[in-house]
Amino acid sequence: MRIGLDVMGGDFAPDAIIEGAVDSLQHLHADDTLVLIGDQNAICSKLSDMQVDSSLFEIIHTSQVIEMGDHPAKAFSQKKDSSIAVGYIMLKSNTLDGFCSAGNTGAMLVGASYTVNVIPGVLRPALAVVLPRVDNRRSVILDVGLNPDCKADILLQYGILGSIFAKCVLEVENPTVGLLNIGEEETKGTSAVKMAYELMKEHPGLNFIGNIEGNLLFQETMPDVVVCDGFAGNVILKLGESFHQIYKQRGLKDSYFDQLDFESIGGTPIVGINANVVIGHGISKSKAIMNMVIRTREVAQANLAQKIKESI
Amino acid sequence: MRIGLDVMGGDFAPDAIIEGAVDSLQHLHADDTLVLIGDQNAICSKLSDMQVDSSLFEIIHTSQVIEMGDHPAKAFSQKKDSSIAVGYIMLKSNTLDGFCSAGNTGAMLVGASYTVNVIPGVLRPALAVVLPRVDNRRSVILDVGLNPDCKADILLQYGILGSIFAKCVLEVENPTVGLLNIGEEETKGTSAVKMAYELMKEHPGLNFIGNIEGNLLFQETMPDVVVCDGFAGNVILKLGESFHQIYKQRGLKDSYFDQLDFESIGGTPIVGINANVVIGHGISKSKAIMNMVIRTREVAQANLAQKIKESI
Repeated sequence: MRIGLDVMGGDFAPDAIIEGAVDSLQHLHADDTLVLIGDQNAICSKLSDMQVDSSLFEIIHTSQVIEMGDHPAKAFSQKKDSSIAVGYIMLKSNTLDGFCSAGNTGAMLVGASYTVNVIPGVLRPALAVVLPRVDNRRSVILDVGLNPDCKADILLQYGILGSIFAKCVLEVENPTVGLLNIGEEETKGTSAVKMAYELMKEHPGLNFIGNIEGNLLFQETMPDVVVCDGFAGNVILKLGESFHQIYKQRGLKDSYFDQLDFESIGGTPIVGINANVVIGHGISKSKAIMNMVIRTREVAQANLAQKIKESI
Repeated sequence: MRIGLDVMGGDFAPDAIIEGAVDSLQHLHADDTLVLIGDQNAICSKLSDMQVDSSLFEIIHTSQVIEMGDHPAKAFSQKKDSSIAVGYIMLKSNTLDGFCSAGNTGAMLVGASYTVNVIPGVLRPALAVVLPRVDNRRSVILDVGLNPDCKADILLQYGILGSIFAKCVLEVENPTVGLLNIGEEETKGTSAVKMAYELMKEHPGLNFIGNIEGNLLFQETMPDVVVCDGFAGNVILKLGESFHQIYKQRGLKDSYFDQLDFESIGGTPIVGINANVVIGHGISKSKAIMNMVIRTREVAQANLAQKIKESI
C-alpha cells in the first residue's frame, strides 16, 4: 500500500504530523510506503532532529500550504502545489492507494468532489466514523457531518454504503444495519426517518434490524452500521468527545473509555468517492496522526472505494 | 405545594413508586403535601409493610389503571378514574400545584394537550431536561423528544421557553442560550437551524451566544439553555444513558458521572402547558421516583407554567 500523508495540514503541522508519521511506521507492513507530502526541508530537518532515517519514507516536495483559515474552493484551485492538491492529483493518477490530512477540511472535501469525484450512483458522499463498542467489536456510523439535512433516499443509501464499509473494512459478514431514531416503533421520528425506515425495511440487500435509540450506541447490542443524518451523527461524535474530556479531567482510568477519544479514532473516512481518503481533526497531535495513518491504510487495504464502485 | 404522584404508572408500580414517595418526603418542605393517586388498598398495604404512617400523605383513590401498552388517547378518554386522568383533573381544578408520573407517556401528553391545554401563544410544548454540568451548575436542554421535526420559529420559541425555565427554575439571571449545531459558523447546519440562528440573533429578549457544538455539552462552557429539535435532544439524552450504563458496568466511580443517570435526573418537565407536569422514565425505581417528585416540586415552586403564561 502507498499511503499519502499531508504533512502541512493541522494546527500542529508539520512537527506533530511528522512525529505521528514516524510512530505509524511500526503499524504499517514491510512493503507499505508512507509518502510524506509537504515542505521537504521542514520534513528532513525534523526527521534529522528525531534521528530518523528519511529514506524510511518517500517524500514529495510541495511549495504551497492551504492554511486552516483559507477559503476551501479558492485555495484548492489556486494553490496547485499545495500538499492537499498534490495528494489528490496522486490519488487520481493511482500513485497513492490512500490519502489523509488533518488540514483544511473544506479543501479536502473540494478535492474529493472535484478531483477524484463522487462515484456515479452515489447521491451524497458521507463522513463515516468507526467506533469501538464495549464488547471490543467495532461499528461504523454515517453520516457524521457532511449532510445535516438528509432525505430518505440518502439515508437508505448510507445503509448500503455502511454495509459495504462494515463488510470490507471491519470484516463483518452480513452486517446489521440500524436506523438512529427516537423510538423503536416505525411511526417515530422525523418524516425523513419514517420514510427511510420503509425504504430500508423493503431493501433486499440490507440486514436491517429497524430503529435504534441513542442508548444502544457503544453497547454490545449496537448494530454494525448506524445510519443517521450528518446533524445527529456530528452531535454523537462531539458529545463523545465531551464525555471523554470530562472523563480524563476527572482522572478516571479505564481501558474501554481510553479508546473513545478522537486521538484513538484517528479520522473519518469519506465514503462514496473514487478514492480512499481520511480526514483528521485539526487539533491532531502525533497520536491522532498515527491513528489516522493506520485508519487510512485499513481503508486502502480493504479497497473501500473500489468495492463501493462495484456494488453501487 | 401540593404535588400529585401517579402511583400506578411505571414498570415497577405501585411498589417502587410508593417507596420513592416515602424517600422523597425528607426532601419536601414541612408544609408540602404529597398526594398519592392510585389504588388506596395497594397504597395503604405497602405503606403498612414499610411501617410508614399513611397520614404523611394525602391519598386519592382511583379504580382504573392506564397500562404502559394502552393506546394513549383511547385509554385517557375511557379510563376517567385512572390515576393519570384524575391527576390532570386535579391540576385543572388547581387542587394540585404539580403532577408527575412514570406511566404511559402518551397518555401523559394527551392529558397535557387536552385537559390542561397548551398555553396560548406556545407553538409546540417541549420536553425539557435539566442536566448537571461539570462545574456543578445546571443547564436545561429542550426539546428532548416531543418534536423531532422543528421549524425555525419553534426553535426560536424553545430559546424563549428555555430562558424562562432557566430563570425561574434554575434561578439563573440573564441565562445564556446556545443553538445546537454542527459548527460554530452561522452558515452551518440544517436549513431550519440556519434560519433559527437568524431569528435568535435578532431577538431582543434572548441572551443568545450563537451555535454550540456537541463537545460543549456538560462542559463548564455549556450555555444555561441549549436549544435543539426533539431528535437531536433525544439522542443526547439517550447517549448519556448509554455512557452512564457502560461507566457503571466498568466499575468506575466518580461523583460527577454518578449524577448523569436518568435516576438522578428524575424526569422531564413538559414546558408550554397550563400546568406543572413532569414525566418519568417507565423503568423508574424508587430513586428515580424520588428525584421525579423533587423535580416536580422545584418546577411547581418556581410556578413555571404561570411564568410562561405571563411572558409569552
